[in-house]
Amino acid sequence: MSQDVVWSPRRSTIARDTAELESIIAVDIGGSLAKLVFFAMDSKKLVFETVETEKIALFMRMIHDIIDNHYQGSQSNVRIVATGGGAYKFHDLLCQEFPDVIEIARLDEMECLIKGLDYFIHEVPEEVFTYNDLEGEHKVVPEHAKVYPYMLVNIGSGVSILKVDSPAKFTRVGGSSLGGGTLWGLLSLITGAKTYDEMLSWAHGGDNTHVDMLVGDIYGSNYGKIGLKSTHIASSFGKVFQRTAPTQKDLATHSHTIANGTDDIQLRNRKFNNSDISKSLLYAISNNIGQIAYLQAKIHNIPNIYFGGSYIRGHLMTMNTLSYAINFWSNGEKQAFFLKHEGYLGAMGAFLTFQNKNDDLGDERRS
Amino acid sequence: MSQDVVWSPRRSTIARDTAELESIIAVDIGGSLAKLVFFAMDSKKLVFETVETEKIALFMRMIHDIIDNHYQGSQSNVRIVATGGGAYKFHDLLCQEFPDVIEIARLDEMECLIKGLDYFIHEVPEEVFTYNDLEGEHKVVPEHAKVYPYMLVNIGSGVSILKVDSPAKFTRVGGSSLGGGTLWGLLSLITGAKTYDEMLSWAHGGDNTHVDMLVGDIYGSNYGKIGLKSTHIASSFGKVFQRTAPTQKDLATHSHTIANGTDDIQLRNRKFNNSDISKSLLYAISNNIGQIAYLQAKIHNIPNIYFGGSYIRGHLMTMNTLSYAINFWSNGEKQAFFLKHEGYLGAMGAFLTFQNKNDDLGDERRS
Repeated sequence: MSQDVVWSPRRSTIARDTAELESIIAVDIGGSLAKLVFFAMDSKKLVFETVETEKIALFMRMIHDIIDNHYQGSQSNVRIVATGGGAYKFHDLLCQEFPDVIEIARLDEMECLIKGLDYFIHEVPEEVFTYNDLEGEHKVVPEHAKVYPYMLVNIGSGVSILKVDSPAKFTRVGGSSLGGGTLWGLLSLITGAKTYDEMLSWAHGGDNTHVDMLVGDIYGSNYGKIGLKSTHIASSFGKVFQRTAPTQKDLATHSHTIANGTDDIQLRNRKFNNSDISKSLLYAISNNIGQIAYLQAKIHNIPNIYFGGSYIRGHLMTMNTLSYAINFWSNGEKQAFFLKHEGYLGAMGAFLTFQNKNDDLGDERRS
Repeated sequence: MSQDVVWSPRRSTIARDTAELESIIAVDIGGSLAKLVFFAMDSKKLVFETVETEKIALFMRMIHDIIDNHYQGSQSNVRIVATGGGAYKFHDLLCQEFPDVIEIARLDEMECLIKGLDYFIHEVPEEVFTYNDLEGEHKVVPEHAKVYPYMLVNIGSGVSILKVDSPAKFTRVGGSSLGGGTLWGLLSLITGAKTYDEMLSWAHGGDNTHVDMLVGDIYGSNYGKIGLKSTHIASSFGKVFQRTAPTQKDLATHSHTIANGTDDIQLRNRKFNNSDISKSLLYAISNNIGQIAYLQAKIHNIPNIYFGGSYIRGHLMTMNTLSYAINFWSNGEKQAFFLKHEGYLGAMGAFLTFQNKNDDLGDERRS
């Protein structure tokens, strides 16, 4: 099944104590990706799967397959727990497809994100890490006393930013429409790329300075007075705009001869390649998210920022850019954290809500 | 000369008292556009001109023409006052072209922006206005006592955000690489547009909901719990990403028949038109700048935000989007202001620095 999934699926597993597990299939259906989590009895592990939301029929078939292979084909042994916008948009479809399940529950997206993240932070070993290109990856064991408050920046098709004061207290403080959907949408329009992996591999080999306008391109040097280095990106894609040549009339009305004028008119025909474009846009979107996350963390006086969502997918360049942005803007005062299962916060939270029958929040949160 | 200028030049005029005027040509050479201001003796008005920075030879010819037509062809009567990154990058070229001028002075970009803006706010009638689509344009006479502190968001190729406490006290608090250069660069890559006017006219007729993913596209309704309307843009360009079709293997391994499944696979062949794309990107960039400006204004507790720079060029959709973003994020607590001569803050500030011989700051600010 891996082959057809544009965002190649990550089948991750986490060992769990079967005693506490129900026959639950948790789904988190977002704008671009549908994620699911279930417990595989045979391997005694949690299984995580992802498929594009536009392949919703395929996603339904995946759930049927799971019921066939893990629950003896009997819907009546299964509870489907759904979150994300698709829990509402596709509720009728879920009811049609799975008429005999115990229940098709709908859970609030933000509550599930936080519940899932809290679980990953506190319960899963080697889940949380810091990353930047210079220092590499460092596993982190968050100290319980210092976890709250934190900020969650969840990057899917768009971006949601949540301030979390405790497992039960959080606020959506902001967001951005410039997220994963923007990166893939623009890149597929420009490059014709068919898969996200193709774009990421292009970005890896690219040189963004062929398309980005740097401070040095404008100043010819650093802009020392305000501390901007010559290599700082002043304008993403600032070198690209192509113009028409001057008309004969323009040339006639300006008849001075210039001995050493540098007219860059030939640049308009320069070609831009997919690698450079991919890297530039990855930088632009990631930097922008990092900056907005920093500004929100500053406003709310929060030191630690967790980045989740399927935008990241363990890609080092993306994580380095987010880390760099947080460090650059905060002068090292804020810290970016990443997660191994970054794309499954919502699905994991939905799964957990029904695990513990004694969890009062579980019932309250049902829609 | 208008015809060849991709960002069509605005030749604006402001009457001035000749007594206080020197023979000054002020230039502000940015990453994408070179602007100039000079005083035309014959009409007793200030003249404002713009040309692309990549046509730097043409810009030099424009200055030669001004000297020929307004200063009897004598460089020795003229002082050139330069700001923007190009004041440094093209300093040698200016010296070669104009070896006999009184001086080629270099002035700091941020200082000139503030000096120019202060002048436009305080001295030029009907310069400042508010705008949104519902209420239209309203001229504003800023009360002197309430002008400071304010924030200036200057949008050129990139974005600079300045906090201004008084004419002599300001700080560059932030910026963004997602500015005018990003909009034109990406749009010219995608649409092949040759002029900014072409893109703006396309944007005017477009429908961004053909390419943007709205909250309603994800939820099928409002996301009422967090107050996001179904028409809110969740992901800019979120509908665009095109994927490959599922393979035969995929279909074979998922053999369930789905009676009423909605597989949107046919959507991948949908065409996207230039108008929809232009409108979406104009919204995305403007919204993003508005959000970052709001967050900075919130951090620094500043109620009034002035938007300057050639990105805006009096375009109503752009101003409405910026105003909307400020109002949306601040719940009406912050106010966006615009300027008739928004693109000439730096050039105007450079011009003014040398107008008053008694202005102590003038000498201090020379580089």
